[in-house]
Amino acid sequence: MIFAIFLPSCYQSAEKKDPFPTIYWLSGLTCTDENFTKKAGPQAFAAAEEQGVCLVVPDTSPRGDDIPSDDAYDLGMGAGFYINATNSPWNVNFHMESYIATELPALVESKFGVGTAGRRSLTGHSMGGHGALTLALKAPPGSWVSVSAFSPICHPTACPWGIKALTNYFGSVEAGKEHDATLLLEQPGKAAMFDDILIDEGTDDEFGRAGQLLLSDFEEAAARVGQKLTVRRQEGYDHSYNFISTFIADHVVFHAEKMRKVQA
Amino acid sequence: MIFAIFLPSCYQSAEKKDPFPTIYWLSGLTCTDENFTKKAGPQAFAAAEEQGVCLVVPDTSPRGDDIPSDDAYDLGMGAGFYINATNSPWNVNFHMESYIATELPALVESKFGVGTAGRRSLTGHSMGGHGALTLALKAPPGSWVSVSAFSPICHPTACPWGIKALTNYFGSVEAGKEHDATLLLEQPGKAAMFDDILIDEGTDDEFGRAGQLLLSDFEEAAARVGQKLTVRRQEGYDHSYNFISTFIADHVVFHAEKMRKVQA
Repeated sequence: MIFAIFLPSCYQSAEKKDPFPTIYWLSGLTCTDENFTKKAGPQAFAAAEEQGVCLVVPDTSPRGDDIPSDDAYDLGMGAGFYINATNSPWNVNFHMESYIATELPALVESKFGVGTAGRRSLTGHSMGGHGALTLALKAPPGSWVSVSAFSPICHPTACPWGIKALTNYFGSVEAGKEHDATLLLEQPGKAAMFDDILIDEGTDDEFGRAGQLLLSDFEEAAARVGQKLTVRRQEGYDHSYNFISTFIADHVVFHAEKMRKVQA
Repeated sequence: MIFAIFLPSCYQSAEKKDPFPTIYWLSGLTCTDENFTKKAGPQAFAAAEEQGVCLVVPDTSPRGDDIPSDDAYDLGMGAGFYINATNSPWNVNFHMESYIATELPALVESKFGVGTAGRRSLTGHSMGGHGALTLALKAPPGSWVSVSAFSPICHPTACPWGIKALTNYFGSVEAGKEHDATLLLEQPGKAAMFDDILIDEGTDDEFGRAGQLLLSDFEEAAARVGQKLTVRRQEGYDHSYNFISTFIADHVVFHAEKMRKVQA
């Protein structure tokens, strides 16, 4: 498994590494770790003296000659959906849920000394926004300090991408319903795990228009259970990295402030 | 010919378009207009209220089924070298010099009202840094307010990339020597056309180490003729867009300030 890590220059000279706030970014369909690091431009904001934030950017699936895949862009390699698949042939390798929830944070902590529980936050885009919301809501309280998302797939049991992924990886949509942020939020104990959840979506998002994201469903669930959301519908923006690069600074600041508050 | 243009949001509501400072970016070998717009992250800095800068980002060559090319990455499509070729088969289409010097600025002025002479500056990377330096020095004084470059090919008559390009496009290195920034700077009237030229190069630039850039030759020529240069050798940076994205804000500010001074 490949991942990217960005360490701000002040990290090098710091004696104690563990206080550095660390943001995990989960990418969307077809992406590797490189889309975010090359196109979103988060480094300047993470490196800013007043932030001093580390970034961890995993790939979206296992890869390699022995890994099953599919000709479609939305299944198999590049489309791991942040679940542990139970259905063959995916069940052998497609364990992105446990990779992001436990394996990768343990590796990052041991190698770099950053991202301990209480010092890491989770965000992502599209399929990765789905991953951020669901993994944050499924984790033990305090594992992730805060969560945000760009154009997340909010209700996968009710959209074409989600129905296809859950059916293939679990055998049925029903079997994958615990990976649905809108349904998860209504489970006992989930509301108010996070004092606020920040979500950006463009008003010209082509996948939002096609019914793949279903942000309104998530907003309605949040209203029912009393979860505070900050939803920003960004006028004229689409689903692309141009959109992400425009607002990534706000998400870096959102998470850095929350992590600093936990430590204070 | 494809080009990208970025207009800051304040442009939309401005009654007069011509005062907007406009920076032209010339890309390097293998690039299209998209490398800079997707990977360098200049938009946030250009859009900043105190800047309000437009960006024009041309492609690096003509393209299409009828355009001659070469299997090598450093000749033909994606490698136009910002010259008007005289040698067959390139002489029919490869006229990037006149395209950047006159055709494109005229088109941008007529369609968008920005980038009139005295309100445009020129910068670029690698082959595009060569293009920026040579076209700025060859233009009538005042055409380009200021010039800067990232990792420019400073002395093409003496490096493998330059020798190959000039030989192919002109028939000999000698025939292309007016496209050499180091030689140009020593021509009468060229020194002090610009009160300062900003150049960034990484100390780990793989092409700098391979003798393709020859920045020291340009520095020595500048010292001989009394041209002020601001050369920043950036510790640990390579030739990539990671390097460009780290320092692009400085170049935006460098040019915006000089253009504002001309207008004041």
